[in-house]
Parts: sequence; C-alpha cells; structure tokens
Amino acid sequence: MKVGVLGAGQLARMLALAAHPLGLKVAAYDPALESCATAVCAVTRAAFEDAVQLQAFCAAHDVVTFDFENVPVAALAVLNNQSALRPNLQALEAAQDRISEKQLFERLGIPTPRYFEISTVAQLRSAIVQLNGCGILKTRRLGYDGRGQVRIEPSSDAALAFSSIACAPAILEQFVPFSYEVSQIAVRAISGEIRFYPLIANVHRAGVLHLSCSPWASTKLSGQAQAHVAKLLLELDYVGVLAVEFFVVEGELVANEMAPRVHNSGHLTIEGNVTSQFENHLRAIADLPLGSTDARGMSCMLNFLGEMPDPRAFLSGSGAHWHDYGKTARSGRKVGHVTICASNKTELLERAEALGVNALHALLEQAENA
Amino acid sequence: MKVGVLGAGQLARMLALAAHPLGLKVAAYDPALESCATAVCAVTRAAFEDAVQLQAFCAAHDVVTFDFENVPVAALAVLNNQSALRPNLQALEAAQDRISEKQLFERLGIPTPRYFEISTVAQLRSAIVQLNGCGILKTRRLGYDGRGQVRIEPSSDAALAFSSIACAPAILEQFVPFSYEVSQIAVRAISGEIRFYPLIANVHRAGVLHLSCSPWASTKLSGQAQAHVAKLLLELDYVGVLAVEFFVVEGELVANEMAPRVHNSGHLTIEGNVTSQFENHLRAIADLPLGSTDARGMSCMLNFLGEMPDPRAFLSGSGAHWHDYGKTARSGRKVGHVTICASNKTELLERAEALGVNALHALLEQAENA
Repeated sequence: MKVGVLGAGQLARMLALAAHPLGLKVAAYDPALESCATAVCAVTRAAFEDAVQLQAFCAAHDVVTFDFENVPVAALAVLNNQSALRPNLQALEAAQDRISEKQLFERLGIPTPRYFEISTVAQLRSAIVQLNGCGILKTRRLGYDGRGQVRIEPSSDAALAFSSIACAPAILEQFVPFSYEVSQIAVRAISGEIRFYPLIANVHRAGVLHLSCSPWASTKLSGQAQAHVAKLLLELDYVGVLAVEFFVVEGELVANEMAPRVHNSGHLTIEGNVTSQFENHLRAIADLPLGSTDARGMSCMLNFLGEMPDPRAFLSGSGAHWHDYGKTARSGRKVGHVTICASNKTELLERAEALGVNALHALLEQAENA
Repeated sequence: MKVGVLGAGQLARMLALAAHPLGLKVAAYDPALESCATAVCAVTRAAFEDAVQLQAFCAAHDVVTFDFENVPVAALAVLNNQSALRPNLQALEAAQDRISEKQLFERLGIPTPRYFEISTVAQLRSAIVQLNGCGILKTRRLGYDGRGQVRIEPSSDAALAFSSIACAPAILEQFVPFSYEVSQIAVRAISGEIRFYPLIANVHRAGVLHLSCSPWASTKLSGQAQAHVAKLLLELDYVGVLAVEFFVVEGELVANEMAPRVHNSGHLTIEGNVTSQFENHLRAIADLPLGSTDARGMSCMLNFLGEMPDPRAFLSGSGAHWHDYGKTARSGRKVGHVTICASNKTELLERAEALGVNALHALLEQAENA
C-alpha cells in the first residue's frame, strides 16, 4: 500500500521510519526547500496550492495523510480521491480554525475557555472588558507553537495587540489559571475501534512544548479525557491519531486545542509504549489492526530547540533514546528530542535529574499540589 | 558523522532505520540490481571488487561498516582509510574463512567441533573415516544460511558430496549431536567497554534461522558464552556488534561460527531490549556511549522466507511487531520477520501459540530436557 504524507517535517520523518517496517511505501509532499523527511522517503517539492501537483501526488497514493494540518482545505476539496484522505477534510477543517474548533467542543459538551470572535479592534476592546482585562489573543488560523498569539493583560493596548498579529481574523480566549496541561492521544480505526494512549502531562515554555511525561496517573482525568476525545472521534468519523490538549483547572479538564495528526507530546510513545503513535496512525489509515497503546513503564520526553546538544551526555545515561531530526540549526526550531524511559516514577525522576532534566520534578510536584 | 555500510540488504536497512534518529548520515554500497536498503538511504551500486568506486565510497564516509561480511578482504586491504573500517579487517578476515575461524576459536580455548581442511576428494575420504562417517562438509568461504553445505553420512559418496559444493576449498566438521543452539551477541566500544545481550536460543530449519527467543535463562551457559565472546572481542580489537553461534552439547557450549556484524538472531532486540543491536552497533562505531542491552520482558522472533504472510493475522495478536524488508518475493529468501514481545515466558508462549508459532513451545521443551 502506498501512503502519501502532506508535509515533510519531523512528523512525516517519524511516520516514514514507522512505515517502512510495516511494508508501506511512503512518500511526502512539501513546499519547503529543505525537508527533514527527505532522508527517509521521497519528497515531492511543490506548493500546497498547486492543484495539479497535489492531485497527481494524491492520485499516486492509496491513502493520504498529514504531517501538517494547515494544508488549505480548498486545495484538498477539489481532489478526486477524497476517500483516500485520512483523517477526512471535516476533521482538518474543524482543527484549522480556532472558532470552528471551539464551536465543535461546545456542541459536544466539552468544556473549553470562554472566547470571542475578533475581526476589529472595537470587538477586541469589548471582549477584553467582558473577560475582565485578561485573555489570549490568537489568530484563528495558522498559529502553532505559540506563534500568532499574544497575552492580554489589564495594561495591554488593544490596538497594539491586534496589530501584533497583523490584524488577522482572531479569537480572544479567556485566560485559564490552570495547574498544568495534559494531552490525550487516541487512535480510531476504519472499523470504528478506538484505543487511547495513557494521559500525557506537558510543560510548555514560551508557548512551545518543553517536556512530556506519561503515563499520567489520575484515573479521574483519564476518564474525562477519554470521554471527550471519543465524542470528537465519533462526531468527525475520524480515522487515525487525534491529539487533544487540555488545561487541568481545579481537577477538571478544559479543552485547549486539538491536532488532527500525530502530536509532539506523543513522541515518547516510540519507546515508552508497546505501539508508537506513528505506527498506530499508519495501522489505522492503512486498515491494519491497531496495536496496543499500553505504556512500557514510565517515560518523559524533552524537546530540543534551536540546535541539538551533544548526544554523549544524554546517551551515557540510562534509558535515554535519541531523536535527531537532521535539521539545520535555527533559533527556536524543533530540531530533535530525547526520551527517557524507566520502570517507574522514582527511577524516571532519578534518570531525568541525572541528565539535568529538572522540569520533570517540578511538573510532578505541581500535579501533586493541584 | 557519515556512516557507510557495505552491503544494502535487510541488515543495512535496519541499520539505516536506527541511524537516522541518532543523527548519523547513512548510505550503503551494493552490487545488486535491487537492494532493500534503497527505501531508507542512498545506495551506491557497484561491485565490491571495483577498487575505484569502493575507495570513493569509503573516502566519503567517516566510518565504514558491514551488512555483508564477505566483502573481499583484498579489495578492502588497499583502502587509504583502514582506520575507518569498524569492525576491522582482521575480524572480517577471520570470519570469512571457516578454517581461520576454527583456528581462532582453538587458539583462544573456545570449544569447537573437530574439523579437517579439505582440498581433494582423497582428503575428504580420509577425514570422513576419522569422523566415523558423520560430518558436515562446508565451503571455507561464502557459505551462509545452509548454502555451500552438505551433510555427510556413512552412506554418502565423498566424490559426489565434494562435487556438490563445486570442489571448492572446504572444511569437514564433526557432526555435533546438540540439544539446541544459542547465540551470544555482544557490542564493544572504541574505549574497550563491552556489553552483552542476554543469550538467545535459536531454531533452524533447513539450515536457515527459523525462530529466536530471548532472554535465555541459563546462567551457566550465559557465563560461558560471555567468556568466549569476550576473548574474541579482545583478540580482534573488535569495535561494533559481534555475534557468535554455539551448539549446546550436554550443557556445554561448542562454538559453531561467528558473524562480524549485526545478526538475524538479534532482530528481536529492536523491541525486546532497551537498545537494539542495530543502534548499539552504530553507537559503537560512531564512538557514542553504548546503550543498555537489558531485555524488556521476553520476546521471540519468527523469520519469514519466500514471501510475507498477511500482516493482519499477526498484528491482531498482542505484542506483535512487523518487519517487512520490502523485498520482491523469491523462494527461500528472507523477506521479513515478526517479533512477539511479552512480560514473561508464560505470556510469550500464549501469544506465540495464538499466532500459530508452535516452534517456540518445542524449543522451550527441548531446552528443559537438555
């Protein structure tokens, strides 16, 4: 079976590394000059808006999936083989626009922060007042890793804030005083079977994922997360891996956003779980039986931004697994990660601290105090 | 760091899959028209005897290693960057010739079957008499997976047997009435550090590996195997993964042969151990710290010959991991494997039997009765 991936970044790279052993023929499509998936599969270089190239790429593959969820829906809507898109356009469309996403959460009864649609400075001023001066202004589209976002405080200048996101169609979200953040990754097969990964706790720095840790022990939160994500999977008739990020607010989940693809917080599933999110996404879209999502002990993942550190310090530690995406160094760019595996929490903490990964201790403390 | 692999078969393919996350740039070299590593790295197509191409390939890489141990030593001996060959020529040379290999075992006090060097039918007749009519006639060079071998029994015609291996320089080995076979895989770093994988028990069918299972519990055998393999690693100043196959004869190990590379019986280390043999081989030759060789539970691997079966039956089972090498089907060809992982022996047996892998039960029984 031939699998095409739209986008050829690190997610496509890790999908390709998982696809080869499954006997799937994989190729990617990306407008970028340099794509890090190039080392592990063929990459077609063309614009997502190039209907001819996009149609040719999709026609050449039995199934088409996404490393990048912001492929223009308009370009995909005219494809002849719609049924080959997994997940489907409906899921992509809902995730591309923060307003649609919030409306979907609301329709399904999934708690989400209060929000206001913003098209003008006047609307923004009015919304700020209703949120008592505090919120996060985000572009409706194309924001990720904290880009296209600005924090609003009582002292903020609304016009300045709006112009800082180029006055793009936006959303003002209530600022949620959360204890910490978690993500629920799930996979749904064509048959409708759903499997959930154990809950993952996340630490962000400057809007970018810094550290993830799983399995996260709260039975109550896991139950809530699974119920919320199951509703989304059913509503969207979703096939593949879906990730949903939640804030934990006084022991309850509040949905932040969803990603209709494999997710950065799920990278630890490569070594930390029986079947990785990458393999299970491929199994789902290729109509193969889903694999076990069970954790193998406890693990945490640390993202590397800008440039890779020397691997020696990490690899001399126990249970460390290296993931260099083969990217050119650039400030703020996600260039790789390390996953640390252990048999239990105490051992994981010891291993993480031996490697200088101090954020794990703080995360575990925060959670206990939450 | 750039790593070149001589040979581009499934071992090179799995080395490349392990190399990418380590940030190593990997390419392979193979004379074959179709090489299964092509899907995961660049492959130079040229003869091993083509000194110009071989020199150019080796000069373009910081380290050069082997998927195929029968690259002609004469071609490698003239390379300018000898020090980049890991393992070194001495190890390759010892493993390429069954007589050198046996002499090395003897010199190091490693028990090995009695043997006779055979160049003529007369020598073969005389050797057969000394072995009481029973033995295995093997070509000294280029034999693998039972090829270039013929069983000698009291009724055998020596001339016919010798001509069946094209009267090539040969060895007649004593037939050893073994209970079962094991392999010891070890990795040695440039620093001299050695790590041993748990012992692996193997079942062959028609001279080809059929099933492997690890960790193999006998402390006594493990101690013997580690002592023998340590001597080889030191004697050869070996860097990388070395695999040695042993017969188990009345509770003692008798060395059969060694492979100066990653080994088919070690494929189960991909999911069955903390660090796979492929990753540890790369870590060793790239001068990175070695990873833990510890088992994660118990696992077994089943080889697929000729063509891949339908993955669905296997992947619907628990703990099954699929490895399709992407090869064209051909009778007797190793085209893939499946590894089944479990937390203990009972669970592994249950999972294997549910998937119709019956050889595991027989292997475990044989071992208990040995």
